[in-house]
Amino acid sequence: MSRYFILLTVLSVLGASGMAGAAGVPKLSTEDYDRATGIYFDRCSGCHGMLRKGATGPKITDEAMLKQSLPELEETIFDGTDAGMPGWGRTGDMTKEETALVAKFLQNTPPVPPEWHLADIKASHNLITEVSKRPTKPEHKRDLGNQFGVILRDAGKGAIIDGDTKEVVSVVDTGFAVHIFRASATGRYFYTVGRDGVVNMIDLFQKKPSVVATVRACLDARSVDVSKYKGFEDKYAVVGCYWPPQMVVLDGPTLEPLKVISTRSNTYDTGEYHPEPRVATIVASHHKPEWVVAVKETGMVVLVDYSDLENLKMTWIETERFLHDGGFDATGRYLLIAANARDQMVVVDTKEGKFVTKFETGTKPHPGRGANWVDPEYGPVNATTHLGEGKITVYGADPEKHKEHAWKVVREAETNGPGLFLKTHPNSKHVWTDATISKEEGVNQTVCVFNIDDFDAGCKTIQVADYGKIVHFEYNKAGDEVWVSVWDKKGQLVVYDDKTLEVKTRITGDWLDSPTGKWNVHNTVEDIY
Amino acid sequence: MSRYFILLTVLSVLGASGMAGAAGVPKLSTEDYDRATGIYFDRCSGCHGMLRKGATGPKITDEAMLKQSLPELEETIFDGTDAGMPGWGRTGDMTKEETALVAKFLQNTPPVPPEWHLADIKASHNLITEVSKRPTKPEHKRDLGNQFGVILRDAGKGAIIDGDTKEVVSVVDTGFAVHIFRASATGRYFYTVGRDGVVNMIDLFQKKPSVVATVRACLDARSVDVSKYKGFEDKYAVVGCYWPPQMVVLDGPTLEPLKVISTRSNTYDTGEYHPEPRVATIVASHHKPEWVVAVKETGMVVLVDYSDLENLKMTWIETERFLHDGGFDATGRYLLIAANARDQMVVVDTKEGKFVTKFETGTKPHPGRGANWVDPEYGPVNATTHLGEGKITVYGADPEKHKEHAWKVVREAETNGPGLFLKTHPNSKHVWTDATISKEEGVNQTVCVFNIDDFDAGCKTIQVADYGKIVHFEYNKAGDEVWVSVWDKKGQLVVYDDKTLEVKTRITGDWLDSPTGKWNVHNTVEDIY
Repeated sequence: MSRYFILLTVLSVLGASGMAGAAGVPKLSTEDYDRATGIYFDRCSGCHGMLRKGATGPKITDEAMLKQSLPELEETIFDGTDAGMPGWGRTGDMTKEETALVAKFLQNTPPVPPEWHLADIKASHNLITEVSKRPTKPEHKRDLGNQFGVILRDAGKGAIIDGDTKEVVSVVDTGFAVHIFRASATGRYFYTVGRDGVVNMIDLFQKKPSVVATVRACLDARSVDVSKYKGFEDKYAVVGCYWPPQMVVLDGPTLEPLKVISTRSNTYDTGEYHPEPRVATIVASHHKPEWVVAVKETGMVVLVDYSDLENLKMTWIETERFLHDGGFDATGRYLLIAANARDQMVVVDTKEGKFVTKFETGTKPHPGRGANWVDPEYGPVNATTHLGEGKITVYGADPEKHKEHAWKVVREAETNGPGLFLKTHPNSKHVWTDATISKEEGVNQTVCVFNIDDFDAGCKTIQVADYGKIVHFEYNKAGDEVWVSVWDKKGQLVVYDDKTLEVKTRITGDWLDSPTGKWNVHNTVEDIY
Repeated sequence: MSRYFILLTVLSVLGASGMAGAAGVPKLSTEDYDRATGIYFDRCSGCHGMLRKGATGPKITDEAMLKQSLPELEETIFDGTDAGMPGWGRTGDMTKEETALVAKFLQNTPPVPPEWHLADIKASHNLITEVSKRPTKPEHKRDLGNQFGVILRDAGKGAIIDGDTKEVVSVVDTGFAVHIFRASATGRYFYTVGRDGVVNMIDLFQKKPSVVATVRACLDARSVDVSKYKGFEDKYAVVGCYWPPQMVVLDGPTLEPLKVISTRSNTYDTGEYHPEPRVATIVASHHKPEWVVAVKETGMVVLVDYSDLENLKMTWIETERFLHDGGFDATGRYLLIAANARDQMVVVDTKEGKFVTKFETGTKPHPGRGANWVDPEYGPVNATTHLGEGKITVYGADPEKHKEHAWKVVREAETNGPGLFLKTHPNSKHVWTDATISKEEGVNQTVCVFNIDDFDAGCKTIQVADYGKIVHFEYNKAGDEVWVSVWDKKGQLVVYDDKTLEVKTRITGDWLDSPTGKWNVHNTVEDIY
């Protein structure tokens, strides 16, 4: 027995508090430790993970951090890095005292966050308006497919705006840092998910849309989607959690929690158990009763068949670390997703349930849901912008009729700077790119637009505002307008005529606090991007 | 933020050593804590789990154990319980001092065992005889299908015995507490797995079969099986681990580690995350390229499709807690498995990939791989014995032609006492049952045999030996002999004529130390039981 028991009696360090004060570890009071944990969660955990094992950002465990001096750490936190880390002091998000605190915290062992079981999720469920008390048809004449959901990030609110009239039909409380909106398959509901894991469901049939149900599916989350396959429309929603690392299936009309599916598993390449494999993105297949779930840290894309939750079929596809964001090609068959810490895009065939290929595009690709168009020379293509450089990379995306270009980079071009999103529409000849995270003076306030038929000419710069950061695009249902956010305390939504690239309208108002992402119902339901 | 951060900063207790000595917690020196951990692993963890969350035995966390006094705990450990827990003092396995030590240990927080990643598994891999250096055909005239593998438990060895001549052709080192033998699909190799997670592979083509490869797949394990589907014969082996909670896929001919699949997930009913869902049993489908894997603590049966390991299809079927042992019905379509802490048998349809039903049989059913026969009145049936009572329960197992009896208890009868195993064979008219864990004087030394055609007459008692414990049965390939183990330091294998129930041979020898399980190659390959 002794020959292997040596191993078994090694105590896990997980959960042992760093406050105990090992040699060289800076001491923190319980109060400071808790405060630092909060700041870390807000600013750092998204890229580095709650357990600090790394993802979009590098591994920053206490062992690793103890190799640097406190002044070095403070400087990095305050000024950021060339690799894409924001300088939290420079942006005004942390004071000098806070960067010093976080530096000390990083040399301490992180806390292991608690679990959040089905019973906890059930206890958080609030069915505000029962299904029987909701309208059976729209109480208004607005075009359901042209409604927009807009995140008002720092206000903890979401706005519903009529795309035809630009009228703000409702502003609802959504809670902390909403990450995305998703429309139900019929377009009747909007679901939002926040970084606190709270899902809100907004009924667009109502004259003044309101939150009809809410549930806290996780303690930290980024994604939500719905069942889109024929026969399952509006039946389920699914939440992708960051912590605990899991997916949560909800009843679509009520948000009643139905099932928790763990993502805790082993990294695809090293076979190492990972305690925190976070759900980065979920998209819903139109061709099968399946969710396509990207698990960041393990590099797995999971196809989850929701047609029988009690006998749950899943396909765990090995791809690349660390998966981030992505979407379908124009046919809805292929998932194109960024493994951004590996500078690669990954292709998964959701029809065959198989990994296809992966290829380099540039420094930290960040496609959002991506962009699909038909290139005059290369046929159907998809593209991504990058967090780490001002570049758009275009690759073939039609293995049937343009096999020679499929999943190969066919074009590259400069944008105005490192950005978060790009967007186009089947009815458009333009591809819009932002430069939200550029550190150059003034560049954040511009976007740059490519002409699909004259890509080599480079992009045309548009100055959207003279303040704030310009971020995220969404087309209207017709595909002839582009909505752009001015992300600032005093926010704006600038609506462009996509043909002329002229401003049509600037939506403003006291309620327009820090607008970021925007989703058009029709484009979201049909995965048009 | 504060509204949910309260939760996030709660420190996990996992891994915090109980040695710190909270109020009321008995203090243990590091040395005693480690010694108690070892004893706990040997005697307690199988039923209660390393993290003590309970399974076949109840939950015995430190919180729960602090509600009892130390003398009460010591008594339970020394004397056992009526619910089936052995009295470790009475059996001579623990001294008074050791029961007192373990009682104190139970009031301390258990250690969290370390991980055992793919890199660790790879480092443990030892390819002793390369494939090219092994014989290409048998080096002997023995009937491969009638070879037996026998566990010599306390000796850390395994014996290969020729079923025709009863000659001991080889005794090999297998390491600590081997749990089972499994034959490869062609019958050419035997794989053993021990409680230390070590797999040994024995080449039966060799004149004197030897261990040709070994690997440590886990730190604690109970199951191993092979790929049996057409085209995949002898291609893969798979190990079911207790700790870490995972399955490990190995290259069949070399034991090279290929993939680790985590079982950490949520319980099927409460949706609670479980950190230790152990693989109880694995059987290999003959009809699909699938392993059927029973996960004890979460109550999940997982169908693992091994035809494409990089795009791994799995079906997670909700059944019942806590799954233990089982096997196929006679057609190989249905898995019949005990949820023994729930006193139930569970039925899973491996063709449709669905849960079928579950039903009560008695106190802690323990079928081993089960037993299949054709009852004159009820048609094809399957049966189980019980850990908690001396009873055999027989239930219909033919939903096609005897639908009215399928998965319903059709017969019950007394055996000699609580036992571990039962066995029959398609060529036999008998069903053998042991009473290994009876606490009645002398009963352990008997077995009891039912006549299939006259079940109501009750079973006929056979006194196998006048010492030791009688355990486990295996038929020879022809199905006309039954091999029974006398589990003792001075062990015997008693071979019965199945027709007359007379002793044919008593296999003895100095090498025959504590024989327990026995597997016939043909019956194991074909799942005949």
